[in-house]
Amino acid sequence: MDGSKRSFLKRIAGLLAASGLAAVGPRGSEAVELPDVPPWMKTPGTGMREYGAPASYESKVTRTLIRSQPGTTGSGASRTPLEALDGIVTPSGLHFERHHSGVPDIDPAQHRLLVHGLVKRPLIFTVDALLRYPMVSRIHFLECSGNSQLLYQPAPPTLTVGQTHGLVSCSEWTGVPLRLLLEEAGVDPAAKWILAEGADAAAMSRSIPMAKAMDDALLAFFQNGERLRPENGYPVRLFLPGWEGNMSVKWLRRLKVVPAPIMTKDETSRYTDLQADGKSLMFTYPMEVKSVITRPSHGTRLPGAGLHQISGIAWSGNGTIRRVEVSADGGKTWTEAPLTAPVLPRALTRFRLPWKWDGGATVLKSRATDDTGAVQPERAAFIAEHGHNAIFHFHAIQAWSVAANGEVKHVYA
Amino acid sequence: MDGSKRSFLKRIAGLLAASGLAAVGPRGSEAVELPDVPPWMKTPGTGMREYGAPASYESKVTRTLIRSQPGTTGSGASRTPLEALDGIVTPSGLHFERHHSGVPDIDPAQHRLLVHGLVKRPLIFTVDALLRYPMVSRIHFLECSGNSQLLYQPAPPTLTVGQTHGLVSCSEWTGVPLRLLLEEAGVDPAAKWILAEGADAAAMSRSIPMAKAMDDALLAFFQNGERLRPENGYPVRLFLPGWEGNMSVKWLRRLKVVPAPIMTKDETSRYTDLQADGKSLMFTYPMEVKSVITRPSHGTRLPGAGLHQISGIAWSGNGTIRRVEVSADGGKTWTEAPLTAPVLPRALTRFRLPWKWDGGATVLKSRATDDTGAVQPERAAFIAEHGHNAIFHFHAIQAWSVAANGEVKHVYA
Repeated sequence: MDGSKRSFLKRIAGLLAASGLAAVGPRGSEAVELPDVPPWMKTPGTGMREYGAPASYESKVTRTLIRSQPGTTGSGASRTPLEALDGIVTPSGLHFERHHSGVPDIDPAQHRLLVHGLVKRPLIFTVDALLRYPMVSRIHFLECSGNSQLLYQPAPPTLTVGQTHGLVSCSEWTGVPLRLLLEEAGVDPAAKWILAEGADAAAMSRSIPMAKAMDDALLAFFQNGERLRPENGYPVRLFLPGWEGNMSVKWLRRLKVVPAPIMTKDETSRYTDLQADGKSLMFTYPMEVKSVITRPSHGTRLPGAGLHQISGIAWSGNGTIRRVEVSADGGKTWTEAPLTAPVLPRALTRFRLPWKWDGGATVLKSRATDDTGAVQPERAAFIAEHGHNAIFHFHAIQAWSVAANGEVKHVYA
Repeated sequence: MDGSKRSFLKRIAGLLAASGLAAVGPRGSEAVELPDVPPWMKTPGTGMREYGAPASYESKVTRTLIRSQPGTTGSGASRTPLEALDGIVTPSGLHFERHHSGVPDIDPAQHRLLVHGLVKRPLIFTVDALLRYPMVSRIHFLECSGNSQLLYQPAPPTLTVGQTHGLVSCSEWTGVPLRLLLEEAGVDPAAKWILAEGADAAAMSRSIPMAKAMDDALLAFFQNGERLRPENGYPVRLFLPGWEGNMSVKWLRRLKVVPAPIMTKDETSRYTDLQADGKSLMFTYPMEVKSVITRPSHGTRLPGAGLHQISGIAWSGNGTIRRVEVSADGGKTWTEAPLTAPVLPRALTRFRLPWKWDGGATVLKSRATDDTGAVQPERAAFIAEHGHNAIFHFHAIQAWSVAANGEVKHVYA
């Protein structure tokens, strides 16, 4: 253990001794004893399962389902309950979803992927053929470009952090570098774009710049160790690290190499960013530097003054998180929060800071900086620049108010 | 992209062009087209779920359940299907299990953890109190000390790699450094051991050296982002990175600080290593450097000569994997396989190597080296040293034979 770790632990131990979280016996005695043997030690437990599930006591930890079209089942989004999670990996059962016409039930033996357009040799692949290609694994976040869109609105929503920020999740993705297939097909040097199309009933499609496709794009087959979940593109999805989630086209069936962006319905009906001056930004692909405190957060109630832990996540589609600062006084002073290793490019990064709450009303904030030097903006400055009309790419600093009674609420501050 | 990555990709592209995995259209034409629009594009897909599950087409990817006592449900082990997974994270639903009296159904509101024995201040904690302590997250493997025990036997088993090696899994674990609680309690400097006891009906217990407890031991609450699964110790388990899995006592209820190891039933009935000379090794805690090729592996059949990918996992309880070498000729020659980042201490590490199979019979092997310099031994040398009587700590090189018809089998070679 190095000196800085030891001094950190010593400081924590001081906080703990003063906090009285544990029931404590008289000094030097063993008067504190376990309660009676609990009922679950008096009888054999349950048997084994071929595929496990969370504890029944955690059954409220679920995705929040929000359907775009009342009365339909297929279109909409589900959000990751960030307030109930810790670490950087999102369990696949709680990964956010965004569908345009529901989740297709694709037989992998029947699925095909076509690579065509401006190539020397059009190629068509079975899933089994693709699974023989060299693969890589990378831990990356995926964020819907519309994540936190309600925060463009003038009034703060009374929603949990999962409900406002839960269109971001993080997984270990394993797949084939897209570059390998494009080189095998032989891309025309004049072709600067690719149309990617999914095999869902919406035939969801986006135009992808060739430079990204040849850089770090993957055809993903595995998520957190196992094959993709249906909601995340089984049997194969495109994955574009750090970019708008919908560009990582799920259920991928077609990659057409083209000279210019194809303005399909998905390219034109959404995913431009209407600004206050009436102009729109287009092709805003990377998700910007962002952070949020997940615990404590809206809807929780601190049980009392004393030691608490501030825990949150930070991420940037442009690179690696370099620094997260936390303020427990509404932004007057900031303390750098230690980042938990591994700190990886385009991955969620966990920060934590012990906090001794004095019991008074205050406001908590976090502010992330990435390795390009980009700093997460204050909401007031962000809205002044972008206005209230936009839907996508909200990434301003999030504030939580803490009342003297311990209630934590969403606040614009 | 750096030069070595580019030259690696160039070499792969050469292999691919010669392998003919894709159906290819005439040069310069677009004669290769997608098949008809598949049925799942003609109707809206299914709706959203609060908590997801794997694709129905992957329903055979399950743990292999092996019960110690026929007729009972509670005791036994389940093994991770390593042959169906990729990357380093094990999905929690497929994490291996080993129980001594089934899985207790513990109400977290009723659960207590006692820290007592040779301490200044005995402490008793609720789960809610522990959740306020400072936490860390780390990606670590967990391996049952009896993993691969059948390979001590004279004849190679006809089992999948999950069935022989699947008592190892890897997760992101989040919890409180045990050191914090011990410092709060005030450990007597003469106390060199801790008895850890679980709240299952077996009251499973092991003795833990104080040095490990004060170094990197955790009280784990979260696994892969969400709260621990019941099979993995909900609501709280001990976690000792790199050490015999059973020492990471699940459902932890008691830590008693003691001067010497307590020889409970679990310490004496198992977990010593009987050697060929009749002597036993005791207190063999770290799991040694080990690797295994997971694809291809026993029970698979290569569909034909040409490009294949060799993919496997390596790990060491003593540190970080530094090198994995792969042999495709039964050990005559070895090639270093690239390791997939992140390469973390006491975590599974994924290695992969493209392999152009010439269609002839051969034998595949992998050999891991960790950063202490320890090298995974050949099985013959390992058995010569340890004999056939032991059960625990098997970590020799694993060989798979490949027949001319593509069949892959377990072999001692």
